[in-house]
Amino acid sequence: MDDNSMNWKTLSSEYLYRETWFTVRKDVCEAPDGKIISPYYVYEFPAWVSALAITEQNQAVMVRQYRHAIGQTIIEIPGGCVDDTDKNFEEAVARELLEETGYAFSCYEYLGKISPNPSTNTNWMHMYLATGGTRIQEQSLDHNEDIVVELISLEELEALVEQNKIVQALHLSTIVYGLKKLAGTGRRR
Amino acid sequence: MDDNSMNWKTLSSEYLYRETWFTVRKDVCEAPDGKIISPYYVYEFPAWVSALAITEQNQAVMVRQYRHAIGQTIIEIPGGCVDDTDKNFEEAVARELLEETGYAFSCYEYLGKISPNPSTNTNWMHMYLATGGTRIQEQSLDHNEDIVVELISLEELEALVEQNKIVQALHLSTIVYGLKKLAGTGRRR
Repeated sequence: MDDNSMNWKTLSSEYLYRETWFTVRKDVCEAPDGKIISPYYVYEFPAWVSALAITEQNQAVMVRQYRHAIGQTIIEIPGGCVDDTDKNFEEAVARELLEETGYAFSCYEYLGKISPNPSTNTNWMHMYLATGGTRIQEQSLDHNEDIVVELISLEELEALVEQNKIVQALHLSTIVYGLKKLAGTGRRR
Repeated sequence: MDDNSMNWKTLSSEYLYRETWFTVRKDVCEAPDGKIISPYYVYEFPAWVSALAITEQNQAVMVRQYRHAIGQTIIEIPGGCVDDTDKNFEEAVARELLEETGYAFSCYEYLGKISPNPSTNTNWMHMYLATGGTRIQEQSLDHNEDIVVELISLEELEALVEQNKIVQALHLSTIVYGLKKLAGTGRRR
């Protein structure tokens, strides 16, 4: 599985933009057969975290938010970017969940990592199952965030998946692995 | 579900780059409460298509390929970008499958659309289940493509999903919906 014989060599790399929300480089690469690939654009983002977040009453904590690139308000799971201040991914996801929803969770289980697109994006989303959630404070949102928290049953969540209403692929992945983890550990049929 | 009251208004929009593989705009937006969000970067991409592609012998047609943004060679499902010459998404996915794998398929079933990231990317991936595949020609690859075709059983595919080896979230989504469709229509347990 870890065959590197197809990997490219990076001959040169130049940053076109290097801002917090917009870091793009233009690479020139060489394939193993000597072919030159130029330009190849790479989008650098910080690591992302998200969680299928379940309350003590066995409800999923969802967030409704406007997403500007598709121009729609959609239902998602909570999550966000890893900050420099976060000691690890678990701390990052706990912070994001608390900020976006006001909920704290007693247990975090790592579900693996997933890529939004390995040909364009450098970053990964680290997926968690968070359980034992209770609301302990108000939301604490960033300037450009406006997030409505919604609690739904796991049956309702499964119906949203079934109906293709979870349109964010990274979130769908987290939900699929989270529900599998619950089932595999006897916490759900 | 289609509540637009949280949607932003776009006050201005400026293209920073407008190349085939790199189109980025910088928007200035206004939230419903009057807050100004500036700058907001939006990445424009063409529509993508992919398929869980099954041969007449009930094997999944997978592709192994180097993905430069993560610097790894990984296993994926076939797919790609919709071209101007494609009359519709089904034609696009059939063309991509033929080019990347040399296989043609007797039946295409639409599984819905999914977003790589609705806050950054304008585009959607349209997901298909392709069945009845037979190899009819050699691969016909683009200049920078080097793709190894691998046939695996559906049990092996499920194991890859279980082991978090399908790292592309859009592809994982397509596989999950494709396997559900096979099961839901009695073509698989």
